[in-house]
Amino acid sequence: LNTAIKSGKVRAPTHIISTISDDRGEEPCYAGVPMSSIVEQGYGVGDICIMLCADHGPCVSGAHNTIVTARAGKDLVSSLVSGLLTIGPRFGGAIDDAARYFKDAYDKNLTPYEFVESMKKKGIRVPGIGHRIKRGDNRDKRVELLQLFARTNFPSVKYMEYAVQVETYTLSKANNLVLNVDGAIGSLFLDLLAGSGMFTKQEIDEIVEIGYLNGLFVLARSIGLIGHTFDQKRLKQPLYRHPWEDVLYTK
Amino acid sequence: LNTAIKSGKVRAPTHIISTISDDRGEEPCYAGVPMSSIVEQGYGVGDICIMLCADHGPCVSGAHNTIVTARAGKDLVSSLVSGLLTIGPRFGGAIDDAARYFKDAYDKNLTPYEFVESMKKKGIRVPGIGHRIKRGDNRDKRVELLQLFARTNFPSVKYMEYAVQVETYTLSKANNLVLNVDGAIGSLFLDLLAGSGMFTKQEIDEIVEIGYLNGLFVLARSIGLIGHTFDQKRLKQPLYRHPWEDVLYTK
Amino acid sequence: LNTAIKSGKVRAPTHIISTISDDRGEEPCYAGVPMSSIVEQGYGVGDICIMLCADHGPCVSGAHNTIVTARAGKDLVSSLVSGLLTIGPRFGGAIDDAARYFKDAYDKNLTPYEFVESMKKKGIRVPGIGHRIKRGDNRDKRVELLQLFARTNFPSVKYMEYAVQVETYTLSKANNLVLNVDGAIGSLFLDLLAGSGMFTKQEIDEIVEIGYLNGLFVLARSIGLIGHTFDQKRLKQPLYRHPWEDVLYTK
Amino acid sequence: LNTAIKSGKVRAPTHIISTISDDRGEEPCYAGVPMSSIVEQGYGVGDICIMLCADHGPCVSGAHNTIVTARAGKDLVSSLVSGLLTIGPRFGGAIDDAARYFKDAYDKNLTPYEFVESMKKKGIRVPGIGHRIKRGDNRDKRVELLQLFARTNFPSVKYMEYAVQVETYTLSKANNLVLNVDGAIGSLFLDLLAGSGMFTKQEIDEIVEIGYLNGLFVLARSIGLIGHTFDQKRLKQPLYRHPWEDVLYTK
Ligand SMILES: CC(C)(COP(=O)(O)OP(=O)(O)OC[C@H]1O[C@@H](n2cnc3c(N)ncnc32)[C@H](O)[C@@H]1OP(=O)(O)O)[C@@H](O)C(=O)NCCC(=O)NCCS
Ligand SMILES: CC(C)(COP(=O)(O)OP(=O)(O)OC[C@H]1O[C@@H](n2cnc3c(N)ncnc32)[C@H](O)[C@@H]1OP(=O)(O)O)[C@@H](O)C(=O)NCCC(=O)NCCS
Ligand SMILES: CC(C)(COP(=O)(O)OP(=O)(O)OC[C@H]1O[C@@H](n2cnc3c(N)ncnc32)[C@H](O)[C@@H]1OP(=O)(O)O)[C@@H](O)C(=O)NCCC(=O)NCCS
Ligand SMILES: CC(C)(COP(=O)(O)OP(=O)(O)OC[C@H]1O[C@@H](n2cnc3c(N)ncnc32)[C@H](O)[C@@H]1OP(=O)(O)O)[C@@H](O)C(=O)NCCC(=O)NCCS
Repeated sequence: LNTAIKSGKVRAPTHIISTISDDRGEEPCYAGVPMSSIVEQGYGVGDICIMLCADHGPCVSGAHNTIVTARAGKDLVSSLVSGLLTIGPRFGGAIDDAARYFKDAYDKNLTPYEFVESMKKKGIRVPGIGHRIKRGDNRDKRVELLQLFARTNFPSVKYMEYAVQVETYTLSKANNLVLNVDGAIGSLFLDLLAGSGMFTKQEIDEIVEIGYLNGLFVLARSIGLIGHTFDQKRLKQPLYRHPWEDVLYTK
Repeated sequence: LNTAIKSGKVRAPTHIISTISDDRGEEPCYAGVPMSSIVEQGYGVGDICIMLCADHGPCVSGAHNTIVTARAGKDLVSSLVSGLLTIGPRFGGAIDDAARYFKDAYDKNLTPYEFVESMKKKGIRVPGIGHRIKRGDNRDKRVELLQLFARTNFPSVKYMEYAVQVETYTLSKANNLVLNVDGAIGSLFLDLLAGSGMFTKQEIDEIVEIGYLNGLFVLARSIGLIGHTFDQKRLKQPLYRHPWEDVLYTK
Repeated sequence: LNTAIKSGKVRAPTHIISTISDDRGEEPCYAGVPMSSIVEQGYGVGDICIMLCADHGPCVSGAHNTIVTARAGKDLVSSLVSGLLTIGPRFGGAIDDAARYFKDAYDKNLTPYEFVESMKKKGIRVPGIGHRIKRGDNRDKRVELLQLFARTNFPSVKYMEYAVQVETYTLSKANNLVLNVDGAIGSLFLDLLAGSGMFTKQEIDEIVEIGYLNGLFVLARSIGLIGHTFDQKRLKQPLYRHPWEDVLYTK
Repeated sequence: LNTAIKSGKVRAPTHIISTISDDRGEEPCYAGVPMSSIVEQGYGVGDICIMLCADHGPCVSGAHNTIVTARAGKDLVSSLVSGLLTIGPRFGGAIDDAARYFKDAYDKNLTPYEFVESMKKKGIRVPGIGHRIKRGDNRDKRVELLQLFARTNFPSVKYMEYAVQVETYTLSKANNLVLNVDGAIGSLFLDLLAGSGMFTKQEIDEIVEIGYLNGLFVLARSIGLIGHTFDQKRLKQPLYRHPWEDVLYTK
């Protein structure tokens, strides 16, 4: 069936309309503008992370819940908030954990093999690794943009390189275990903190411990969620109802 | 395509699994138990409203957002809340408005025709009327159960009868304009207030003005949303992602 | 100053008005009715927990945030939700953890001393123990009511007795380390599960592992939070602003 | 009593500690840096609004609820969201309404007197007018900074001047009826839209009708609320409980 739909033979009417951003192609676009063209304009790293994380299409958990709430006729704050509440361990909220675990592993000189297998033994998924859609042969363009930026602008990218080595190892295990955007930002910030010369080792430990980085993602994605809310209101979309056919009713 | 799916020839894999309740048949069921059998056991009217409103399947806005959030690995409160935020003018939050408008129209002796057409002139949808799925020839069983209960137990059902007359008129205009559960509860509570003999006319006006009834729906539906959260956790469902094919990307 | 206020010599104008419930005395009251009189009427244990947890005055985190949001002129759902979001490890959300740890410790035959000290070594606070206000010589009446009920109605109260022994030990360490309502409900449900004869040992393990009990508190407290929202609206309270004098502005 | 506290004779222990921003003096400061020095650096108007609205101290409804939730040990998203939910008609959510009403009144050539009195007749508060603390002789510095900026950089400020005339009239009625930051941003954006030459009259009407401006405030204030969350976590603040003495328990 999916094949039939993709081949254009069958056309199912879509239940959702969206104009904000499009994450289907090689590279995500905001209103038709590809991300790389936005990044190539000489911003700081914080701004770039904000821009890369601002939105990732209408299909991800956050945007989806915001769209559903906006279509229920609710106000901006309720719509935004309903989407924000999905941010967490599986969606957008793994930046700080990625930074913590990568830092710990690197500082202890663990090889990627030792690190990943020790996580497995503890039964913890490696934060910053894995994606629902992206694969080894179809990386996340945002991750590549971040890495390119860091290699060009940062004095040292040792944590980032370590994350890449971890990815090489996990990709050898399964094709979905790519470095995701949370892992990229997490490792990149470790390099930023270490390379800035502004913090003592102890201060860096405390910063990573408290975990400020998820705040960056939350703020950035708020931009996208606010955009989706207005988009649905402008398009005057009616109440959403998930199709019965898509649910398995069981015991 | 939908016809093909329904006829069982094509089988699309479902994206959602649920065990809590089933609203597809004639009558909603909680874990297999039909609602009418629950109602027939001698409870008070408040308890019955709570039970009838506790859940209405996994496809409605509230349950859907709660399910998506739970599948993002978030805690109970975040999941519940993400769903609650969809309750409003189009989903579950029209009880007080229905009570206000029905009361006003009845007390002013407006005929259903005068009432509905005056709302149309003001550009306001009649609260308590309209449903996304139910039709004139496929009423909402919950509405029927409530009306049966009221006719059996209440000294007077004048507001409820008025709501039914309004529905008769709106159904003559369009087949989707049935009396919905918000409208049924709203009118029924007007009869309860008027019939109880416990409140002066002025007190009733104030109660309807402040609007306590949506609280009943919000509390009742919290039960269902908490249930959906645990259901998804128990079933260990992974991160939800809305299918690309179901979105129309446009400008 | 506080002494002066309490002695009645100085009277600071209060910033908050509330009519819902009063938790200042020996025993909490709902609209003037003491809790014990509600409990003495032959309900099941689930109903009693709901009633005991429905509200605990306007000063606790949840009610406070709901009141502030309602006074900002926001709708019922937003006000309710703003308060619900405070429920967690420190406020109302420790029931499942209490059940897990008490069960684990009891089943392993740890003495209260071994249990509490092992938690201390791990740097984890004992969930279900500790209260912001209650003390060894001023127990939480709700805990006493629950224990009385269980002793009267349950075939066995071994987990509850264990929790009491843990409390005896923690109270010997510090006067604030009483068994709180979360700990009482957690242990009581262990007895209920074990005594019902309806579940195998493995099923009980899974129930405690998933953790359904916080849902009970969340649902119960929703009643109180909805009440506080209507209360503030009825009293037409203006926008709340925390007094500057009560904040220490520092670096 | 307040006099005694202010004069420094009596010192009540504060219940809240905060380091993020200070709104007590003439001009709000972020971590000690006064706002005007931030504004004087050649940003665009959107950036300036974001910066002026990012925070306004720990005492306002939003920051307060976020602080309470963070002190209940909840995660970043829950804390942020609990505060965001207070944004609405009385706190930060009046920008779009201010734009709508000011535009309508100006375009209809209503005098400030006619406009304000017609609102009074309809029983609607003039959005963008009024402040809990600021007075005619103690204006909101943020409003002055915005007006200065607009006068220097905008081709025409006719809507802004109209808002100032409205303020002159309302101040003649009561000293608290100053133009607030919502009113200032609302009127300033009308000038921006009208002066940009990019939109037709009809497009401007649609933009104002849908109301995108509250999104600006919501996004800006998210920055402050995220800051307050981290601030409380860094300061390891315990569970907040509102003091009993500050509540009037009544019927
Ligand atoms: C992002 C994520 C939720 C996507 O999950 P998903 O596509 O639903 O993947 P599934 O949960 O179906 O997992 C598929 C398999 O990959 C494994 N896997 C997925 N992510 C993994 C990780 N980070 N580490 C180790 N194994 C992982 C799963 O264990 C599962 O293996 P199994 O089939 O043997 O049980 C998941 O990769 C993850 O949890 N990553 C870690 C947290 C993270 O970085 N989140 C932020 C993403 S922006
Ligand atoms: C419940 C509701 C959201 C379902 O809406 P929906 O199925 O998405 O319906 P649509 O918005 O697509 O409307 C279909 C048509 O019916 C009309 N309509 C729907 N509800 C109406 C009402 N209550 N009064 C008058 N007309 C109504 C619409 O105007 C539309 O007419 P059009 O095609 O000429 O523009 C809608 O009926 C409604 O808003 N009802 C009033 C509020 C209410 O009672 N909500 C609580 C429901 S539990
Ligand atoms: C309920 C609770 C938040 C009240 O906390 P509080 O009054 O703010 O107490 P404080 O955080 O100021 O702690 C006071 C002292 O008691 C200790 N303490 C408090 N609760 C403790 C517990 N459950 N186990 C061990 N020690 C505890 C603290 O470590 C602290 O000791 P210190 O001064 O040596 O550091 C706290 O007791 C707690 O976290 N309990 C466990 C979780 C729980 O049951 N929550 C639900 C309550 S309804
Ligand atoms: C901002 C606001 C909530 C502050 O309110 P507050 O300090 O709690 O003021 P109160 O509600 O106690 O009102 C005091 C008096 O001023 C009047 N008042 C306050 N704002 C008014 C307005 N915008 N228009 C007309 N009258 C107003 C009130 O009616 C009241 O008069 P009364 O004593 O005769 O009844 C209030 O001014 C308001 O609602 N303004 C309009 C909405 C707005 O701009 N909000 C965004 C602010 S950032």
